[in-house]
Amino acid sequence: MHLLQKWSIGKLNHVAMACPDIDKATALYRDVLGAKVSEKHPQPEHGVYTVFVELGETKLELLHPYGDKSPISGFLEKNKSGGMHHICIEVDDIEEAMKDLKSKNIRLLSDSARIGAHGKPVVFLHPKDCNGVLVELEQA
Amino acid sequence: MHLLQKWSIGKLNHVAMACPDIDKATALYRDVLGAKVSEKHPQPEHGVYTVFVELGETKLELLHPYGDKSPISGFLEKNKSGGMHHICIEVDDIEEAMKDLKSKNIRLLSDSARIGAHGKPVVFLHPKDCNGVLVELEQA
Repeated sequence: MHLLQKWSIGKLNHVAMACPDIDKATALYRDVLGAKVSEKHPQPEHGVYTVFVELGETKLELLHPYGDKSPISGFLEKNKSGGMHHICIEVDDIEEAMKDLKSKNIRLLSDSARIGAHGKPVVFLHPKDCNGVLVELEQA
Repeated sequence: MHLLQKWSIGKLNHVAMACPDIDKATALYRDVLGAKVSEKHPQPEHGVYTVFVELGETKLELLHPYGDKSPISGFLEKNKSGGMHHICIEVDDIEEAMKDLKSKNIRLLSDSARIGAHGKPVVFLHPKDCNGVLVELEQA
């Protein structure tokens, strides 16, 4: 079956965490744990501030709401201390991956790939089809 | 300050997910997403079954309760579809890391490091001191 598959999965790109206080979360990873962290980037088009924590080839993506229509506001209302929001796995061909996953009855949260926070096409898979975990695929 | 620090943080070792149906979760990553996955290992001393999914240098660790005192049973009662349970970051010297973190008022969930599911010393940090996320440190 894999011989016919037109796309491949790659590495874990990042683990995203919603943070009620992103400066405090940044300080934990930078000052207490000694990791390399990015500046805080406002991403108005995605409704979040982001800070990236480098942990080898995978990053932690710290998220905090930007504006009043942020996609993570509801999550933070339910998880007041913050928590893990999604994981992002790389794929080499997101269009082929989407076709294949649809044919395997995995629900996608959008009909077409969108441009994500890293400027690359992404799509989210329904958590109910992924053991309760929100999974993002990103074109590598 | 970093010149005096006696330990360093390393890469993200794994992201652990509690799964109500570990065989179904394994099939998602192996058959649908095409990742390389391990056999299912019973780990009676840790109260879990584990399956490891290889995604570059970081693994997903799929967890399912083993026995009736499993440390993840409570989590699955609260999260019936499953969900992300903890992240594990490598450190080069866990004893120095524990001393340093205690002095910085990060609460540890055990007084001494214990042997984790990979046979290496590990310690868990209190989620309330880590933005709502359970963080495991593992001696690399």
